[in-house]
This record gives sequence, structure tokens and C-alpha cells, in this order.
Amino acid sequence: MNLDQDALCVTTLRMLAADMVEQAQSGHPGMPLGAAPMAFVLWSRFLRHDPSDPGWPDRDRFVLSAGHGSALLYALLHLSGYDLPLDDLKRFRQMGSRTPGHPEHGLTPGVECSTGPLGQGLAMAVGMAWAERQLGERFAVEGQSPLLDHHVYVLASDGDLMEGVAAEAVSLAGHQRLGKLVVLYDDNRISIEGSTDLAFTEDVEARFRACGWQTLTVGDGEDLDAIAAAIELGRAERGRPTLIRVRTVIGHGTPLAGTPTVHGAPLGPARMAETRAYYNWPELSFHIPEEVKAYRAGVIERGMELSQGWAARIAALEASDPARVAAFREALSGVLPEGWDAQLNALEFGDKPVATRVASGKALNALALGLPALIGGSADLAPSNNTHIQDGGSRNLHFGVREHAMAAIVNGMALHGGWIPFCATFLVFSDYMRGAMRLSALMETRVIYVLTHDSVAVGEDGPTHQPIEQVAGLRALPGLTVFRPADANETALSWRLAVAARGPSALILTRQNLPILPANPEGVARGGYVVSACDGIPEITLLASGSEVSLALRVKDRLAGAGHGRVRVVSMPSWELFAAQSAEYRRGVLSAGLRLAIEAGCSMGWHRWVGEEGDVVAVDRFGLSAPGGEAMRAVGMSEEGVLARALELLAGEGG
Amino acid sequence: MNLDQDALCVTTLRMLAADMVEQAQSGHPGMPLGAAPMAFVLWSRFLRHDPSDPGWPDRDRFVLSAGHGSALLYALLHLSGYDLPLDDLKRFRQMGSRTPGHPEHGLTPGVECSTGPLGQGLAMAVGMAWAERQLGERFAVEGQSPLLDHHVYVLASDGDLMEGVAAEAVSLAGHQRLGKLVVLYDDNRISIEGSTDLAFTEDVEARFRACGWQTLTVGDGEDLDAIAAAIELGRAERGRPTLIRVRTVIGHGTPLAGTPTVHGAPLGPARMAETRAYYNWPELSFHIPEEVKAYRAGVIERGMELSQGWAARIAALEASDPARVAAFREALSGVLPEGWDAQLNALEFGDKPVATRVASGKALNALALGLPALIGGSADLAPSNNTHIQDGGSRNLHFGVREHAMAAIVNGMALHGGWIPFCATFLVFSDYMRGAMRLSALMETRVIYVLTHDSVAVGEDGPTHQPIEQVAGLRALPGLTVFRPADANETALSWRLAVAARGPSALILTRQNLPILPANPEGVARGGYVVSACDGIPEITLLASGSEVSLALRVKDRLAGAGHGRVRVVSMPSWELFAAQSAEYRRGVLSAGLRLAIEAGCSMGWHRWVGEEGDVVAVDRFGLSAPGGEAMRAVGMSEEGVLARALELLAGEGG
Repeated sequence: MNLDQDALCVTTLRMLAADMVEQAQSGHPGMPLGAAPMAFVLWSRFLRHDPSDPGWPDRDRFVLSAGHGSALLYALLHLSGYDLPLDDLKRFRQMGSRTPGHPEHGLTPGVECSTGPLGQGLAMAVGMAWAERQLGERFAVEGQSPLLDHHVYVLASDGDLMEGVAAEAVSLAGHQRLGKLVVLYDDNRISIEGSTDLAFTEDVEARFRACGWQTLTVGDGEDLDAIAAAIELGRAERGRPTLIRVRTVIGHGTPLAGTPTVHGAPLGPARMAETRAYYNWPELSFHIPEEVKAYRAGVIERGMELSQGWAARIAALEASDPARVAAFREALSGVLPEGWDAQLNALEFGDKPVATRVASGKALNALALGLPALIGGSADLAPSNNTHIQDGGSRNLHFGVREHAMAAIVNGMALHGGWIPFCATFLVFSDYMRGAMRLSALMETRVIYVLTHDSVAVGEDGPTHQPIEQVAGLRALPGLTVFRPADANETALSWRLAVAARGPSALILTRQNLPILPANPEGVARGGYVVSACDGIPEITLLASGSEVSLALRVKDRLAGAGHGRVRVVSMPSWELFAAQSAEYRRGVLSAGLRLAIEAGCSMGWHRWVGEEGDVVAVDRFGLSAPGGEAMRAVGMSEEGVLARALELLAGEGG
Repeated sequence: MNLDQDALCVTTLRMLAADMVEQAQSGHPGMPLGAAPMAFVLWSRFLRHDPSDPGWPDRDRFVLSAGHGSALLYALLHLSGYDLPLDDLKRFRQMGSRTPGHPEHGLTPGVECSTGPLGQGLAMAVGMAWAERQLGERFAVEGQSPLLDHHVYVLASDGDLMEGVAAEAVSLAGHQRLGKLVVLYDDNRISIEGSTDLAFTEDVEARFRACGWQTLTVGDGEDLDAIAAAIELGRAERGRPTLIRVRTVIGHGTPLAGTPTVHGAPLGPARMAETRAYYNWPELSFHIPEEVKAYRAGVIERGMELSQGWAARIAALEASDPARVAAFREALSGVLPEGWDAQLNALEFGDKPVATRVASGKALNALALGLPALIGGSADLAPSNNTHIQDGGSRNLHFGVREHAMAAIVNGMALHGGWIPFCATFLVFSDYMRGAMRLSALMETRVIYVLTHDSVAVGEDGPTHQPIEQVAGLRALPGLTVFRPADANETALSWRLAVAARGPSALILTRQNLPILPANPEGVARGGYVVSACDGIPEITLLASGSEVSLALRVKDRLAGAGHGRVRVVSMPSWELFAAQSAEYRRGVLSAGLRLAIEAGCSMGWHRWVGEEGDVVAVDRFGLSAPGGEAMRAVGMSEEGVLARALELLAGEGG
């Protein structure tokens, strides 16, 4: 250990972060100034990573859950030799830079996940640690060291620890005994509104211990050796995750140290000058001493040694056990294995009505046979969501009633690599995990949300359990592909598309049985297609998704009985896929005539597809507790209700 | 205590609940069978309520957080003499009954809040207990006993305690030292997927103690006296909330006792018979022994004594302190006091641009002067949300970074009565509290959501902090009135409407400054109005909300310069209010010509207002980190971008 170099590096991190905020005239200097020592100890003495290969599969993961401290992360990446030159640091928070206001996965090398929405970073880290352990088990051979063996480190703030999503994840991490997870808690006792005494006086360590964690305290966040000793103990404890509470001072070294004012605003030139004086630092922005440059070179060299050592070990193993290593490499690549969908494609649903949640369970199980990377579970609703993998062993995850952490954890698993995770709950409780679903979309993680019990047809459980606005809300989320399949065949095809997708998907499924329709793989892949055509130009086209497609088909029959023979029915399982088709294809499917949309959910968004002359039969109110069929009729989801509206439209009473 | 009567009552509760589920062929018998003893002890020996006056202000509150156990609650209400006859119990979960699948506030007398979405009941109870204490303080006179002095009791399940929203609320309740809150935890060790060992092995009591709670254990959930002794200790501890863990057996007395199977399905005739035999119960459905009827009469009588005693005390006080009692009565009535909006109406914003979040802070403070019932705060963002009440004292609540619990807590405060609560965070983090916002809408609680930083104009904080889909998602929620005001005047008017509203409102506010527009109270009250008219029929009408109204006005000027003089600009601060206007009014505002909508959020829903010939300039992608103006331009929110699209439309290039 070179103590002078250490001290210089810590001050460099601090001043770089302060300089970045000052240059941007925007950002959060307080946390980096307080937490730089613990971050540096972790990165310099423990973190196993290769700055020249940020994707090295066996690297330790570092998650800055307190994403507002991004300037600290960028300074760490720069000092460690990642491809993030000083010019990027100088363009902090500017258009097109790789140093955005909060860390963004995919934009900056070395950023493991997008953080800023508090609590989720910690929950994603739990997912990463869980993924690591599961992957180790999957490729384990007795008597040999595991193919992957790395830690997940988190830097978290009091804001992270107040969030419910983190509390859920903490409980689950303790339950799962994720020993390779080490959380550094930057305990600066300051939140935006003032002292944490205003709202956060719980005994954090006792809470974590109650959840099965090891807890350690470092009384002085400037004491590098004490921090190192605690991390060492965290690494040594393999049976429990570890929380290390480190007492720090927000905005350390500035005239505003220890106050909320320093949390989220530039210091200004006068205070910057005082801070430089405090640290005995030259009057230069973005100054990096020579000793620090030497440190940087050392990190790069050590990183290459580490990753090359691992690669050599895997290569050596390849000679003796080529199949295992090939499967391991394939899993890490994320590429779907040969024949992954063979069992799915062979599925036959017969001709008896089946709930799409049941069809989904069959599709999932068919896929699981050809896709060892498929892993997941439910927030304690597996029997209702039909998400159990038969003989799936530890691929069946039990999240407990913790929807938000569940979604964040599957994000973490997808980010870790080696897995295609899914998770499940009732559609109405997707509300509890919107925050993490948004990060799925933003980070483009390949996760599959299985959301069952998708309408008022849920029935007796009543309005608290009957989704109304959820499908619209999910369709509004950029980057999420929403599927609301009309029958078992569309369900299997949706699963196929979701697994092959680049980003996240949501499968919206019924509790109740639905008739089987002819399979139309191309139609589903295009997001919308003609289910039932007619001769000539349609008088009216009925647009629907999910359970309302068969309702539309019945209405078509009723319309024929009322003398309207030219009726088309269109299924729109995925608006996102349909919107991505050519205008010509879309016009061809929608037809030029009158259009009536039918959906057992709110009308929001359907006017886009029906046009001004058209109309929407939807449910813009809460539901009610009654048997499903009765409840649906009560909210207008019935042959009679839709038929009446269709006849009005045909009679010229426009929407 | 009549022990025979007690035992008969407990068995009656159990068998009524099982009968209800059996009759409905739907529902959850497991929890009522296990938790009936503790519920009965609480209701018979402690709960101060008046079944003949369910709205008695000083009643103890009982919250069934485990709402799936609704049959138990209905049985309790029936046995206690509430207006819920046996016929209602026989129509459990049927159309139009007052015994829906999950408890619904407003539908059934004695149901304090709608529960079912797990964790929220406990969080709402925290809000009720907080409201009680604050109300006591507000009307306190030294040396006199408080006008209100009641407890809040909760029956919670393991599912409740796994949820993050409950964890947040537990931490805050301990911090606030809410001594009148007593939670009975039905520890049956069974969740839907199996034993709680699958996912929930934390030391719940230690976690609660870490959060400042008293914790007690009852080892045998059949031991009425042990339960009573624990509740007594809970009541005696005034400085901390109390958790009582009661070990129970799910589905007690049935052949399925102790298994997940009994959680959520009818027992069936054979198992019902075995259960009746176990409890030595006659072969009759909905049987109520004579002793139990006598118990019922006693509860009614005692309840009337309690509430009349309280009423007499208040009446006596009225003679000596009429002003205080009048104010107290007014607060409880929820009616707005004379002149409540005088200060708001007198607000002047001048002519300099001002952020609507800043205008909101001024409106809030103006209202607070005339509305002592206004109470609230932020999830640790008060300085950014501008939600601090000057000299507001304890009316300023500090929720910490706990959005979901915050929203549930304000629901609980509104349900308790005496307060008009508001809460605040960044709009993008409304995602974290969707679950509770939905319950606001479903229960029609008058709560006001202050959601600032409403678009990509947030700027440097980047896409994790820039809302895109949130406004659409909130507009999709039935029963929530969403306001996106265009300037300071619209903001003040929106506040006025929100306070006077029957149900919940959301105020969507900018971080950045916006020009001041002419005030149009009637236009805002109608949800949409013409901000800038033109001679003759408009060639094109620009529709916008919030910050895009002034953008539309600038585009109108540019269009005039390009030879298009007949341009109308419409502000649509609230779709819900606009949709409620007559078709004639709406047509008059929207005009018959081309329409172009502009909004710095996703386009979802706008097609309804622009028609097939029209178009929408919106942001159907995530944002980016850069100064706000640059970020807005990059996503097309600029004069140039909108002007170009308007000119295309005018040139006949349709949407």
C-alpha cells in the first residue's frame, strides 16, 4: 500500500467530482466528497475488474445505488483506466456525453446498471448476486472450482435504505444467504430536507441483522484501513450478505460540510477555492497528479492479469470438458441455443377453450426444456400465474410478496448475464413495480413480465384486483413490448417473441378460458392481423386484443344476423409491433371503413387506431365484485353492449 | 367475561366466514379460520366503536390489512350489530352486495378503508394514527383531555409484512412514535406458494424493534386471554407502536389446516362437514346461536353509550369554549370553511415567468392560511417540490424517501377525517406510488398529489428523472383528476379545484419557468379553453397542456409569419374536466378544422382530441441528460419541430 498515493487518489476523486459539478453548473457534489475514501478503498484494494475489458464475465460488480453520486463513479472509472477520458468528465451532464447526470448502463463502460431511482440499485445488486450463485451452481462440477466466482458491491445512501424496494430486497437477500453481496452504506445523516433525524431514525444495522445480514460499522469514513478491514470481513463471510455502515460527512472539506445544501448544487467559485485550500490542492480544474497516473497504469495492468488468468483457466478446462465450457460460453453470450423453440413450436392446444395464463404455463414449460437460461418465478402467486417450471429445481425462484424488488432483481439477473429471467404477479399489481419496469425499458434488459388476471373478468375478487388502466399504462412505457394474446396460440407465439426480443416484454393474460383461434405466427409477429375477413370492403372493422377478440367474433356473427355481412375482425396482440409495421400494412389490416375497438380495460390510446369516425367500447371505470361473466356484462363487456354500439355506428351515429 | 359466549362467538365467526366462501364458491377461508380468535378478542374487549353510528369521529379504527380475509370482517360487523344483515353475508361476492371480495370503503358500514393490495392497509393505518395525533394536538388545550383519543388497530398477514410499502410505513410509524397504533400479525407461516420458509425467514419482531416498535408474542392464537394481555400492553405503551405476533394455524379446524390449499378456495361440502364436526357445530349454514345474538345486543348498547358519552363531553365543552368546538366540528365535517380561498384568489403573479412548482408553493401557502386542515409534505424533496408551509409547524410532514407509504399514509389521513392532506415527489417517481394512488381513486379520498419536474425539461438529471409516460398513466386512472397547468394562474386555479374536489387530484408541475398567461378561471374549471382565438374558422388549432401552451403560442406567431393567420391555441389543463363538459362545449373549443396536439410526454391518448386528420407532437422515447432547453429540443419539443409539423399538416400531409 502506498499511503501517499492513496491519499492523493482520494483527493483526486473528490476534486474531480467537485470540478465536474462546477463545470456543468449542475449535479451533486455532497455524496462524492463524503464517500470517496470508501469507494477508493473498495476499488483499489478489492474490486476485481479489467478496465480494458468491462464485459469480463467474472468481474466483481459495483453498483452505485445512490446514482446521484455519478460524478464519483465517473471519476473512479477514469482513475481506473476505463475508456472514459478526462474530456468526458469535462462534459459531465452535457448533450451527447458519456457522463450523464445519473449513471446509464450501455452508455458508459463500467456502469453496471442505471441508477438514480433510489433503492433499485441495491435491489438490482441482489439480483446480480443471486444470478452469480445460480450460475455457479448450474455449471458446477464436483471437486472443481466454480467457473464464476465474484462479488457484488454496492454503495448506498440513506435514501436507498428508506425505500421499500430496498427493504424487500434486503429481506430476500438475507433469506437467500447471498454471501457475496457487500453493501457500503454512506451514513452521512443528511437528507435533502435536513437531518435524517427528521424522518429516518431506525436502527439500520439491527434491521439488516433481523433480515439475516452481517453488519459492521466504520466510525470514521476517512479511515482507509478501517474501511478495508470491514470489507475484508464482508468478503470472508460467505453465508450472509454484509452491510458496512460507514460514518461520513456530506460535502467533506467544503464550507458546507455536513449540511443538506451541499447535496445537489455546485459549490461556486469561492467555496471551491476554500475546498481546494482545505485539501491543499492546486488552483487547477481537473488536476491529476503524476502519482495518480501511476496508480491508473497499475490498475489496468492488474485488471488484464486477472481477466487473462480467468480466461486461461476456462480455456484449460475446455480441453477436458468441452461441452460444459461451450454451454457456459453460450449462456454468457445471451445467444439463444440451437433448437431453443422446438418444443414450443410443437405445442398443441387442441380445440377446447383454455385460459391464456394456462397456455402461458405450458409455453413456459416447453421453452424451459430447450432454454436452460430461463429462470424466474412469481411474487407468491405461482399457482395462479402458472409460472412453475416442472422439475425446474432452483430455476424456480420464490420472491415472496415483494413485487417491486422482484422486478428490480430480474433486471439485475439480466444485467449479470447467463440468464433470461421472467417474473410474475397479477396485472393489477404491476402498479407496485412500475419503477423497476421503467428501468427494464430504459436499460433494455431482456426480462419477461407475466401478468395474469387481466381484466374485470377476474370477477369476485373485486375492483382492487381488477385491472383497468394497467395495460394502457404499460403500452405508454417506451421500450416495453406489451402482448395481450387472444388465445393459447397467440400466447405461445408471444412467449416466443418475448424470449427473442432485445428488451423487456409484458405478457397480459386471462384468468378465464378463451376459445382457440387459428394460429397466425406472422400476424402475431406483426402485432396485428385480420382474424376474420369478409368479402369486399368491410362496413365495419372490429379491433380487439386478448379476451375481446373472441367477443368480437361473436359480435360479428350477431351483426351478420342483423343484416351486416361485411364485418372484419382484427386482433392486435401488440401495439408496439403493429406500430412498427409499414403504413401500408397497417392500413391494410385496419381497413378504410368504420372501426370499433373493444377492450376490457380503459379506452386510453385506442382512438389512435379507430380514427375520428370510429369508437371504442372499453371500461373507463372501476370494476365490481361479482362472478366474472356478470362483472364483465355490468361494465359493458358483452355481446349485447358491443353489438348495440356497432349498430349505432353503422347507423351513422359517430363516435 | 362470559367464556362460553366467547367461544361460541369465535366459532360463529369462523363458521360464518367458511359458510360465506362456500355459498359464494369463491373466497378465502384460511385466514378467517386462523385469525378469528384474535379478531374477536380485539373487537369484544377493546374496540371502542358504535355499530349504530359507524362514522362516530372518536371511534377506534380497525384496518383489515389482509383484505382477502374479508369474510372475517363481514362476520365481525354482523356480530357487532352493524347494518349488515345475514342476507348480505349470504350474498358474499355477488353482484350488488355489500360484501364484496375485498373490503370496500364507502360500500359497507364499518369498513374503514379498501384493502386487498397488500401492505397498504398497514400503511393507511399509520396515516390514521398520525392524523389522530395531529388532530389531538391541533385542538389541544392545556389541562384538558383531548377532543379525540382513539386507537388504530390492524390485522396484518405475512404478505402485508413482506411488502415494501409496509416496511416504509413501519419505519415511519416508529420514527413518529405512534403509540396508539397496534398491529396484530397473523403469523400462520403459510403463503400461497407454500411455507413462508420459501421466501420469508427474517426475524419480523427484531425488524420492528429496530424501527422503534414494541413487540410482543402470543404463542397460541387460540388463547384469548393471552391475546387480550398482549393488546392491553399495546394500549398501555403510548410512546411506541406495538406489533403483536400471534402464532396461528391457517384454516384452523379444517382437514386442510396448516396448508396453502386452504388459503383461497372453498372447502367443499365434505371438508365443511368435517370442519363442523371439529367445532361441534350444527349442520346448518349461517347458524347463529342465541348466546351470540345476546352478545350482539350488548355490543350495540355499549357502543351507543361510548359515542353518547363522547358527544356529551364535547357538548359540555361547547358551552365553555364554543369557538374551539365549532372549529373542531368543521374540521371533522370536511366542509371548507368560510373564506377558505380568499388568500388564494388574491394571489398576484406579476408578469415575469415563473415555474409552476414555484406558483404551486405560493398557492399552497395562500391556501394554508385559510385552511387549517391542509397538511402534508414530500418524500424528502420539499425544497424542490415547493411544498413547505411557512410557519406551518407540525402541518409540515416529513415522509423520508418513502413514496409508496407516503401516498398510502395520506389516504389514511383523509379517511380518518379532519385533514385535507397533500403529498409530493418528482412526477417520475409517482411510479413508486401507483398502487396507493389507485386506492385514492377507488376510495375517492380527497388527497392532492403535487408532482413536479414534469418533463424532459428537467434536463441534466437525465432519463431516470425525466417523465415520459407518467401523465398518460395518471390520466388513464379512473377517478383521479389530473391537472397540468400552463402557468402560475392555471396552477393556483388547479389548486383551488383540487381542494374543492370530491376525490383525489394530481398537479403536474414544471421545474422550469413559464410565461404568465391571462387568468381564465372558468376555462380551467372546464378543463380546456381557448387561450388564443383567431378571426374566422381556424385553419389549425394547437392543443397543449402545461409548458407546451406557451410553446404553442410561440408557434402561432411563427405560423402567422409564414402566412397562416387563422390559428387557435387551446389549453387543456385537465382532460377529465374537459371530457365532462357538454359535447357542444368541447366541439366549440376544439374547432372543426385541423388539430395538432403538443405535449412533452408520450402521445398516448391525444389522438382522441385531434381526430384522424390531426396529429400529435409528443415524446415517445426516453429523454437524455443535458441542459433542459437542449434536451427538449433534442426530443422535438421546440418551435422549429412543432412549426414544421404544423406546416406539413396545413400542406395536407395528414397524421
